[in-house]
Amino acid sequence: MGPLATIDFLQKLLAATPAETDQEHVPVVTASVPQIPDRAAAFRGGGASPLPAMIECGQRLIDAGVSLIVMPCNTAHLWYEPLQEALAIPMIHLVDAALDDVAASVGSNGRVGLLATDATIASGLYLNRQSKAGRSLQWLLPTGSDMADLVMPGIHAVKSGHRSLGERLLSKAAAALAGRGAQAVLLGCTEIPVVLNNRNSPVPVVDATDSLARRSVAWSVDARADRRTAA
Amino acid sequence: MGPLATIDFLQKLLAATPAETDQEHVPVVTASVPQIPDRAAAFRGGGASPLPAMIECGQRLIDAGVSLIVMPCNTAHLWYEPLQEALAIPMIHLVDAALDDVAASVGSNGRVGLLATDATIASGLYLNRQSKAGRSLQWLLPTGSDMADLVMPGIHAVKSGHRSLGERLLSKAAAALAGRGAQAVLLGCTEIPVVLNNRNSPVPVVDATDSLARRSVAWSVDARADRRTAA
Repeated sequence: MGPLATIDFLQKLLAATPAETDQEHVPVVTASVPQIPDRAAAFRGGGASPLPAMIECGQRLIDAGVSLIVMPCNTAHLWYEPLQEALAIPMIHLVDAALDDVAASVGSNGRVGLLATDATIASGLYLNRQSKAGRSLQWLLPTGSDMADLVMPGIHAVKSGHRSLGERLLSKAAAALAGRGAQAVLLGCTEIPVVLNNRNSPVPVVDATDSLARRSVAWSVDARADRRTAA
Repeated sequence: MGPLATIDFLQKLLAATPAETDQEHVPVVTASVPQIPDRAAAFRGGGASPLPAMIECGQRLIDAGVSLIVMPCNTAHLWYEPLQEALAIPMIHLVDAALDDVAASVGSNGRVGLLATDATIASGLYLNRQSKAGRSLQWLLPTGSDMADLVMPGIHAVKSGHRSLGERLLSKAAAALAGRGAQAVLLGCTEIPVVLNNRNSPVPVVDATDSLARRSVAWSVDARADRRTAA
């Protein structure tokens, strides 16, 4: 969606690709269209729906010849279902990819801390999507004061380039979740993994963007193998 | 063309954008298709022409709705003319953008050192394209031994992740050109600006990818202003 999120996703896609030569890299078409109406504003009821522009953008990618669409943006997934319904090709859901990875880390009934924006947490995007039958992850959210004092200022610090401040605030927020029993922390916001990782969190972190990138590479490798079998 | 060059260009595009809000960023569609036949091999006569795949890729971008095409790849510009002829929308030539910037730095008849791969230098891509009437830049190339001992091993070091070695070799090559009278050094290879810049070169450097990014942003800002005037 935005230019930074696009670059971040492409870097994770590249890192997740087991390529030894250029030819083995995943062919990818990206559309970075910052003019799509603000998703967080629309979620809060204060702006136009981004859905028509998202459908148009997805259609352009299909016109360009892609056969899978992914969106490295948490909030955009609030419109995932109508978007997937409008488009003729498959999409991988960012949250499904992240939930699969965190369940592999803590088990189907494990305790997961969630670090994300107010809007993402309030929307239920992560909390209401268990996605696989028999899975019942136990969520731990930051307290209201941790959201106000650590998480939101930490995300804002990263956005405005103050990385060491962001790292200090967000690793404190992760430590608080771990202290309350979280076995892993899910990072449901593209800014957080810029400063928080397995080295400065007391429990493993799962970066949703990275989960989506690795799932996308796996899809591409499978599709290539299918084409080889069919040929 | 390759995934790293795509990310590098998108980062320079972002840095060149005078945006205060997301909405002001340049809408961009990228096609990173590493399966296009190797340009350097084709130039040396040892491989299939990449032109048909490049035309198909450009057509896909047009189908996706773009109105300008740029290629952040030096060698690809060996096929610029037939590609531009086959596509119905304008393209900005990477070398023209770089020559404009270096001429602004050294003057129309200034002395310019060129750091690039063997293939790029041998092709005459930079040397034969003055592009603006009245311009007659004076070229200084690395000697054969500097190419063999500094430039090619330096580029290879950056490609394989040995940045400090790459920096040492390439800043030596830039110093040699400056010692022979170069008033600026043109970086005609995407790997070189990763380690060489105005801080470790004795004369100003011009990064061709950055020139292309800034020219692309200027084009987009102008196009937006034209649409506003027309509306």
